[in-house]
Amino acid sequence: MSRARAETPFAAPADPRGAPGALRTPVPLRAATLTGGPLARVRERNREVTLEIIHQRCEECGAVDNLRRAGGLLDGDPVADFQGQYYADSDVFKWLEAACWQLAESPEDEKLRARIDSMVSILEAAQQDDGYLNSYFMNERAARRWTNIRDEHEMYCGGHLVQAAVAHLRATGERRLVEVAIRFVDHVWTVFGPGRRPGADGHPEYETALVELWRATGEERFLVQARWFIDQHGASPAAIGGREYHLDHAPLHKQREVTGHAVRALYLYTGATDVVTETSGTTEATGTTGTTGIAPLAEAVDALWRDFADRKRYVTGGAGSRHDGEAFGERWELGDERAYAESCASVAHFQWAWRMFLRTGAGEYRDAMDEVLHNGLLSGLGQDGEEFFYVNPLADNGRHRRSPWFGTACCPPNLARLVASLPAYAHAVGDDTLWTLLLAEGTVTAEVAGGTLELRIATAYPLDGAVAVEVVRAPEEACGIALPAPAWAGPVAWSVNGVEAAVEAADGFTVLRRRWRAGERLTGAYAMPVRPLAAHPRVRATHGRIALTRGPLVFCLEQMDHPEVDIRDVSVDVDAEWTVRQRPELWDGTVTLHGPGWARPAPAPDAPLYRQARAETTAPRRVELTALPYHLWANRTPGPMQVWIPLAG
Amino acid sequence: MSRARAETPFAAPADPRGAPGALRTPVPLRAATLTGGPLARVRERNREVTLEIIHQRCEECGAVDNLRRAGGLLDGDPVADFQGQYYADSDVFKWLEAACWQLAESPEDEKLRARIDSMVSILEAAQQDDGYLNSYFMNERAARRWTNIRDEHEMYCGGHLVQAAVAHLRATGERRLVEVAIRFVDHVWTVFGPGRRPGADGHPEYETALVELWRATGEERFLVQARWFIDQHGASPAAIGGREYHLDHAPLHKQREVTGHAVRALYLYTGATDVVTETSGTTEATGTTGTTGIAPLAEAVDALWRDFADRKRYVTGGAGSRHDGEAFGERWELGDERAYAESCASVAHFQWAWRMFLRTGAGEYRDAMDEVLHNGLLSGLGQDGEEFFYVNPLADNGRHRRSPWFGTACCPPNLARLVASLPAYAHAVGDDTLWTLLLAEGTVTAEVAGGTLELRIATAYPLDGAVAVEVVRAPEEACGIALPAPAWAGPVAWSVNGVEAAVEAADGFTVLRRRWRAGERLTGAYAMPVRPLAAHPRVRATHGRIALTRGPLVFCLEQMDHPEVDIRDVSVDVDAEWTVRQRPELWDGTVTLHGPGWARPAPAPDAPLYRQARAETTAPRRVELTALPYHLWANRTPGPMQVWIPLAG
Repeated sequence: MSRARAETPFAAPADPRGAPGALRTPVPLRAATLTGGPLARVRERNREVTLEIIHQRCEECGAVDNLRRAGGLLDGDPVADFQGQYYADSDVFKWLEAACWQLAESPEDEKLRARIDSMVSILEAAQQDDGYLNSYFMNERAARRWTNIRDEHEMYCGGHLVQAAVAHLRATGERRLVEVAIRFVDHVWTVFGPGRRPGADGHPEYETALVELWRATGEERFLVQARWFIDQHGASPAAIGGREYHLDHAPLHKQREVTGHAVRALYLYTGATDVVTETSGTTEATGTTGTTGIAPLAEAVDALWRDFADRKRYVTGGAGSRHDGEAFGERWELGDERAYAESCASVAHFQWAWRMFLRTGAGEYRDAMDEVLHNGLLSGLGQDGEEFFYVNPLADNGRHRRSPWFGTACCPPNLARLVASLPAYAHAVGDDTLWTLLLAEGTVTAEVAGGTLELRIATAYPLDGAVAVEVVRAPEEACGIALPAPAWAGPVAWSVNGVEAAVEAADGFTVLRRRWRAGERLTGAYAMPVRPLAAHPRVRATHGRIALTRGPLVFCLEQMDHPEVDIRDVSVDVDAEWTVRQRPELWDGTVTLHGPGWARPAPAPDAPLYRQARAETTAPRRVELTALPYHLWANRTPGPMQVWIPLAG
Repeated sequence: MSRARAETPFAAPADPRGAPGALRTPVPLRAATLTGGPLARVRERNREVTLEIIHQRCEECGAVDNLRRAGGLLDGDPVADFQGQYYADSDVFKWLEAACWQLAESPEDEKLRARIDSMVSILEAAQQDDGYLNSYFMNERAARRWTNIRDEHEMYCGGHLVQAAVAHLRATGERRLVEVAIRFVDHVWTVFGPGRRPGADGHPEYETALVELWRATGEERFLVQARWFIDQHGASPAAIGGREYHLDHAPLHKQREVTGHAVRALYLYTGATDVVTETSGTTEATGTTGTTGIAPLAEAVDALWRDFADRKRYVTGGAGSRHDGEAFGERWELGDERAYAESCASVAHFQWAWRMFLRTGAGEYRDAMDEVLHNGLLSGLGQDGEEFFYVNPLADNGRHRRSPWFGTACCPPNLARLVASLPAYAHAVGDDTLWTLLLAEGTVTAEVAGGTLELRIATAYPLDGAVAVEVVRAPEEACGIALPAPAWAGPVAWSVNGVEAAVEAADGFTVLRRRWRAGERLTGAYAMPVRPLAAHPRVRATHGRIALTRGPLVFCLEQMDHPEVDIRDVSVDVDAEWTVRQRPELWDGTVTLHGPGWARPAPAPDAPLYRQARAETTAPRRVELTALPYHLWANRTPGPMQVWIPLAG
């Protein structure tokens, strides 16, 4: 393995070009645009409001000053004057990553560039002579460096530093920050490694960052380190205590059950997937666990995905059922009112699914990206761009609202970096085909079949299923245009220039392969009936309930749309007819569902907590229900919300 | 206030005799026996197995050695060699309290007496010259004493020391340990108090203990201190941070919502109820909050009880819905599979309900005692007497089992002290009537109407509703025998010597008042039909489900009684006929319910997590269901369990 890639900055969060295990590679950020629809709107808000707000809050909460003091750029004592959590640096790093992706899209934004330059200078100053960089472990706390990587998030912070550096390199072509990252990583490897200290990262993140650093620099040692750190999980004797919480209860290649802290788990699986993608087909023994080759780790990530998708994922794509330990719970433990479903877990779910797609090309992973993005991920962002959810429950009594910031502020900048880099997730290439992953109005330009394919896409997806793709440029040779064939969708009659076209089915996609010519128009429409979903019978919390979906969107009932009934008193028939209304007046456009339900009388104010059960004698009354896309809830008058609606008995 | 009571050791956990706010007073431990039925069995197991096991585990885990080292009775360094949690002392104190109550019942048990004497000597040695006693905060940690009473449980441990001392005095008449407790409490009052340091107890327990020390010693300063510490909650400025978790978000007399850490909350309400009972009718201003008289605190405990009973209590009597923060959740947030319902919270619920009963005489509190005892409290104790639940969920997949011990081992000795003192909770006197609170085979002797009333009770309650009370001795004057009239029970035709008797209804009791004569027999029988209960419609987790109850017992389905169906696939009709079987072969006797249910087909192994909901087309099949008293679950082959059973649609 010795692919040198540093010469071609490629603005995408992951660049598996040339990896032996990558069936698909992304189309980078600058080669795709998202110009209309909900994704364009959220990106515009991210650029104009959220990135600014997060920068401001990183300044206000002292996180940037911590780094300034560490670098001697601000008077004060790095320890005595440190503000925030010991992992406050990571919020700054994630903001910086987000800003770099934004700059990749808007290279003309000199104010943003100057702000990034200034932040890079702060990090250069904050880096110690030996390469160490963490503003918390300074002065008298320096003795604690690397003494507790299980709990103290040094590698987690370092991982975000590396990802910011990779984004900076890929956005600007400049190596200033990546040199900082390399010095940091090389320093870590003087402490840990074969023959040095053992130790797995208690909050994974560093592993996927290391793989990207290898991809960005072509320096193979970073890939070796990524694999070593992954193999440290579950090492015997345990380096970090052997707890499930830290995914340290068994070697990762032997793990088959999605468990532990949800974000940590999903980040670790993401890094492991990267390592599998980069080393697929290789057979060399690993240093620490004695497994031969990468196959066991590949089997593990496949099995973990199955367990996650089949047993431990909310219908919104949210992940993590428990507030305590921010953990996945038991199989099918998917309580709705106390769902944790941290916004960071949705980001991690999206990133893992993307890497699984790039590795395998399978549509299941694309569907997962689509579903978590449009539901449990975008729900983290308020429509004002200034407030955020940390926790994304699926039912609430009206007290859960978005906040401007958090004591642990991981989610806001995590959402921001994902949104800023979104165009890079929208398309991929492979097999002389352009694979569209995220349908939205926009353009894409990619190299396929030895030439350039440029498309202009028009669609109001996910609000409407009609899609028109105009070929702007095409290579001489035949190539494929692959559009999603989501599991929820029936067959789509695709036409080229108005004539029904021959298509190939390809695991979750429909491929139209031909010699495309500029000006040709590919059109079709996903039927988007309202689909009530039932959960697996073992999911106790949703027994006897349905969730309304349409296309990739999951809907909820919100109290403010129901002035005449408490939504906690309603039920629906499984075969009710739902009407779809386009709602251009709501947040620049969304869609709502309208249909009949039943309301039982509201409980009396003095209704006892437990009473003798009797057959229902009062007939429920008919009510009209309105369902809103889940990701838009809690943007209006506070009140109860529920995704899972009881079926009428 | 200057009632001197020290001269008459009175073996009960609370002694409100003579308190201005006590309508009822307990019949002490030695004056009542529980000789048959489930309560006798659990007490026998407690005496023969559990007390021994807990003593042994307190030795094995080092908790007793911590105290020995603090007293110089064992070589080693109290700090370096300290074992366990910083509140490990409290487990020893609770064992000691339990042992003392046991000794009150079995004064002839010389081995137990010697073990108690030995433990008292250890505590005498461990006490510092200034009265301080806590084996954790020794030597270099001594500087931390009383610096963080919010988190470091010094007062919680002290409260259990005081309760052990009161139990020791009341069981033995000896003052050795109570002198230790007084020195400790007086030391605390040199640190905290008006004009000294402010500070509320972060883990309440000390308050109720102080009231009992006042009652045991007649030293009024302890009652003043109890009230002062209660009033410190929610003081402004906040002495311990103002968090809801510590019940410090508002002055307790202004609190109306049951909230925060469930055990801390219930202990605080218990102490507040004691203070109300002791100072009811008084009007003097309190020192710290400026409230006038005790009325506001009395209103608060009444309102808090209403909130607890009407919105935040599991059908099993369990309390605390959340694992995170071991907290009460929102109103009606009573999820079953992740119910926390800590065994200590059940003990606290029982103790608070008892004090509310003693204060008011109202049957609601007696019903609560009966229900939590027979369900969510006894569930904490395994049938072997050697294993314990910390957490008592109402549904489980088979992984939750009792443990021999815990890193935080509060529950086992807490259950043990409750069980050891149970006869003292069984009866009360007031208004020339003997009020029976806990029905069980046994005897009771009490002073009423200027003479002695002695009864022999025969019943298999709660397994059967028949009750026979034989008058062994009676005073000359007319007096009342009051038997429970639980909310679940219909009218009972009580007879005296076979002739239906005139009765008076008294708030949750039936009183038979007459000139009783030795040899008279009072008989009657509670009808105990199977009563399916439904929860309040706002309880999301139990929507469309019922819980089977009979008398005070809540039942559950356990997998091992259903070899032909997975109990998670069954449903029941609300009006199904249930048959009751007495089961003498199960744990020396219990009762099971048998009735028809419906089973839907088990999900296919590859059933997806979410699928399109459709009207059910396959008819469910009939199955026979067996329901077991909830408190007995998890004593046989592990497997799924559920209290709340879905209603057939």
